[in-house]
Amino acid sequence: MLPFARITVIGLGLIGSSICRAVRAYMPTARVTGYDASAEVREIARRIDLCDDVTDTAGASVTDADLVILCVPVGAMGAVGAEIAADLPADAIVSDVGGSKASVLAALRAALPGVVIVPGHPVAGTEHCGPESGFASLFKGRWCILTPDDQTPEVATARLRAFWEIFGANVEEMSPEHHDIVLAVTSHVPHLIAYTIVGTASDIEDVTQSEVIKYSAGGFRDFTRIAASDPTMWRDVFLNNREAVLEIMQRLTEDLNAMQRAIRWGDGDALFAAFSRTRAIRRSIIEQGQDDAKPDFGRAH
Amino acid sequence: MLPFARITVIGLGLIGSSICRAVRAYMPTARVTGYDASAEVREIARRIDLCDDVTDTAGASVTDADLVILCVPVGAMGAVGAEIAADLPADAIVSDVGGSKASVLAALRAALPGVVIVPGHPVAGTEHCGPESGFASLFKGRWCILTPDDQTPEVATARLRAFWEIFGANVEEMSPEHHDIVLAVTSHVPHLIAYTIVGTASDIEDVTQSEVIKYSAGGFRDFTRIAASDPTMWRDVFLNNREAVLEIMQRLTEDLNAMQRAIRWGDGDALFAAFSRTRAIRRSIIEQGQDDAKPDFGRAH
Repeated sequence: MLPFARITVIGLGLIGSSICRAVRAYMPTARVTGYDASAEVREIARRIDLCDDVTDTAGASVTDADLVILCVPVGAMGAVGAEIAADLPADAIVSDVGGSKASVLAALRAALPGVVIVPGHPVAGTEHCGPESGFASLFKGRWCILTPDDQTPEVATARLRAFWEIFGANVEEMSPEHHDIVLAVTSHVPHLIAYTIVGTASDIEDVTQSEVIKYSAGGFRDFTRIAASDPTMWRDVFLNNREAVLEIMQRLTEDLNAMQRAIRWGDGDALFAAFSRTRAIRRSIIEQGQDDAKPDFGRAH
Repeated sequence: MLPFARITVIGLGLIGSSICRAVRAYMPTARVTGYDASAEVREIARRIDLCDDVTDTAGASVTDADLVILCVPVGAMGAVGAEIAADLPADAIVSDVGGSKASVLAALRAALPGVVIVPGHPVAGTEHCGPESGFASLFKGRWCILTPDDQTPEVATARLRAFWEIFGANVEEMSPEHHDIVLAVTSHVPHLIAYTIVGTASDIEDVTQSEVIKYSAGGFRDFTRIAASDPTMWRDVFLNNREAVLEIMQRLTEDLNAMQRAIRWGDGDALFAAFSRTRAIRRSIIEQGQDDAKPDFGRAH
């Protein structure tokens, strides 16, 4: 039995459009309705036949839904919740895919009093965005984190779990607060660092932009991928997971200072020790299927 | 006409063994001799038939060479230079592949007075190391930087250029000092950041190692690749390109502080502006063939 039969996806970017495609690929008898605030995106969604129906208002997209998934930047969750509140069926479950969870849960509870909310976050993506960048297999083998709290009925969380498992995702539950500190480490701070270093490299007077590009295969190019991610989405993540990000940044800054000090004082043993302990993590990530085992991410040579 | 006929490669790791393979693939009439300080590596090199000959001393490997390429960690260049000095033919050219150039040129000049030295650096690699990790096409479409100074005869630099071009590399010339600041930006600081962030993530008490690994697809896993690189090689790079690395780190630290401040004060416009300017660099890197155009580096999904 399918956990949901009439699914509405609001926000048809990389993640939203991947959910639409996954519903069609893995739950072909379910109906999927889409809405996006951008008329251009709705037009593309219709042209590429992304959903069974694309509506022109958020409210119209939810009238018949048993699951509504909000796939908009985390700063917009509250407003979108308010937009659908009047049209939402009483038994519909609302979920989302936002990269920060405590602030989203608070915003949705305020906008949708009495509604069953199961916040979610599929830890998957690419650097591309928009309705044409999604694909059905995006969630396969990746983790999806659900962050119910004590107001969330267990049966609702179980249905969401079943939904994501149909797409091939592994599902984990944790508190919104724990999610936010874990993702600050594994996603938010890495993105902040990548955005910053790409900016810094552009600003060095002694090195031209052309040189940065030509010699990027020395390591820099790896950072440019995630630094090409959607700016609105990431602005909202940092504004909405401020405390956890600043805490991890503080730790990282201390560690960077220690590295610089080791370089300045020529402490080769400290550098060697620091550079030796990091290989085991890479090995585990590959062993657990979270990255490609091929050298250089499998890039063509 | 081939620029060199009898090539000696000292140090049979990723880069050295790739040169051996490239000589055999693209210069089949040239003879390639190999030496490595590790008896185990020499044994593997013989077993996999990496070279026409593998010698048991550095001196024996160079007696007949017209080109000697040192592929050892930059901190070992001077010692290896001294080891081959007595056996080096008078007309042999010595080059290297080290990631820092000013210190290497100084070390080789001191160890090999009167010898023609053309320092080089192919900006290519993977996170793997050892004689079995190399491949003939590693340098294809990548840049190789030569850093001759006013003591280097132009004809020697021209022969090295021709040598690398046979492997499909693009060759650029610049001063050792400029090389060192350019590579600090495009390679050394990215590696230092990657090593540090992987270490920091391992040390956060509130987040388990298992969580870091499970949710690494959120961005973190990208950093673990270059943080799995050879610790000895990278220790030596940082000890030998200290000033340039510390200068770029200072700039990066200022920019990281500005980002943290924008997050703390909720300055969404500053974050959005910073996150919007970084896409163009990614686009140029792909347009210029320095990275894979496929989403997510072409990883399997």
